Amino acid sequence: MTEIVRPYSVDTRRGKIMPYRKKVEVKVGDLKGFFCDDEAVDELVSKANNPMVYEYYENSQPEMCGQLNFGVTIINPGKVGIEYYMTRGHYHSKRSAAEIYFGLKGEGMVMMQTKGGQLAHLPVKVGSAVYVPSFWAHRTINVGSEKLSFLYAYPSDAGHDYCTIRKRGFAKLVVERRGHPIVIDNPKYNQ
Amino acid sequence: MTEIVRPYSVDTRRGKIMPYRKKVEVKVGDLKGFFCDDEAVDELVSKANNPMVYEYYENSQPEMCGQLNFGVTIINPGKVGIEYYMTRGHYHSKRSAAEIYFGLKGEGMVMMQTKGGQLAHLPVKVGSAVYVPSFWAHRTINVGSEKLSFLYAYPSDAGHDYCTIRKRGFAKLVVERRGHPIVIDNPKYNQ
Repeated sequence: MTEIVRPYSVDTRRGKIMPYRKKVEVKVGDLKGFFCDDEAVDELVSKANNPMVYEYYENSQPEMCGQLNFGVTIINPGKVGIEYYMTRGHYHSKRSAAEIYFGLKGEGMVMMQTKGGQLAHLPVKVGSAVYVPSFWAHRTINVGSEKLSFLYAYPSDAGHDYCTIRKRGFAKLVVERRGHPIVIDNPKYNQ
Repeated sequence: MTEIVRPYSVDTRRGKIMPYRKKVEVKVGDLKGFFCDDEAVDELVSKANNPMVYEYYENSQPEMCGQLNFGVTIINPGKVGIEYYMTRGHYHSKRSAAEIYFGLKGEGMVMMQTKGGQLAHLPVKVGSAVYVPSFWAHRTINVGSEKLSFLYAYPSDAGHDYCTIRKRGFAKLVVERRGHPIVIDNPKYNQ
C-alpha cells in the first residue's frame, strides 16, 4: 500500500519555514575541507567559537519517485579567509535530479559544475528563481552583508553526494576583492 | 547521449517569469465544463467578450525523470456565476508526481482531492508554500479582489490529466457568499 501524504502549507515570511520537520545547523568546523583555507577554518573554530555558517529548515517527504523535498536555507554573512560563507555543495546521488532555488532575502550566488567540466554561476536575488538542471553540482554562497535566505525544492529521492565535492572541490571560488565578490580559479581543484 | 540542460535564472518580481519559454492564456470559454454554471460561462463569452481567467508562463525542461518544470500562474479576480475564477485543475498523468506552489501576490486557495475521496484545501498567500503530494488532484482559485500570482514547480515528466476533472469535477466548489469565499459541495460532482 502506498503511503498517502496529506497536503500542507508553510510560511516563509520570517526567513525560515514554519512549521518544519528537520533543522540542521552547519558550523565552520563542519566545513573543513570545503573551504580553501584550512588554517582560517582552524582559527575560527579555536578563536571565534566555531561560528555557524548556515542552517536549513526542511520538509522532506518519503523518498519516492515524484515526491519533492523543499525547505529554506539561511547563510550568514561572513568569510573564511577571503572566501565567502557558503554551503558544502553537492551532486545529487541520483545525478538526474534537478533543483530549484527561489531567493527570499539577501544576495547570493549559485556556483555549478558538471563532471564533464562545464561551469556556470548565477545570482540568487529576492524574487529570482534559479534552475539547477540534472547532472550539475551546486553550492550557494552569501556574497552580501546580510543573511541570504532562499527556498529550495528537489525530487525527494535525489540523495546527496557531498564526498565528490570534498575530494575534488569546485573549479571556481568566490572571494572578496576590494569589498566585492569575484570568481577565481580554485588553486586546490582536483579534477 | 543525454542532453545537458544549462542552468539559468528568471525574475518573478513583475508577477510573471522573465524570460519564459511558453505562455498560455485561458479564457472563460475554454473552461466550459469546469465551472459549475454553464449558462454563466455562455453569457460571459457572448456578452463580455470572453474574458481571460488565467495565464501561465512556463520554463519547461525535457520530459525526463528528475528534471523539474516551473513557472508562474496569474489568475485574474472575477467570478462565473457565484464561483470564483480558477484554473482547470488536474491530476498528474504520472500520479506519483507532486507539486509545490509559492504565493507571490494576492489571495488564493488550492483545492485538492484524491481518487479515494480524501479532500483538502489550503490558502495560497504571499510568502507561503503549499505542498501538493503525489496522487492529489489540484486546482487553484483566486478568492481575492486583485490578481493572484504564484510560482509552481513539478517533475517535468508528470504530464497533465484534465479529462478526469472535466468528467467528474471536484467534490467542492469555492463560491462567494456575502462578499466572502466559502467552500460548498459541488451539486454536479460525479464521483
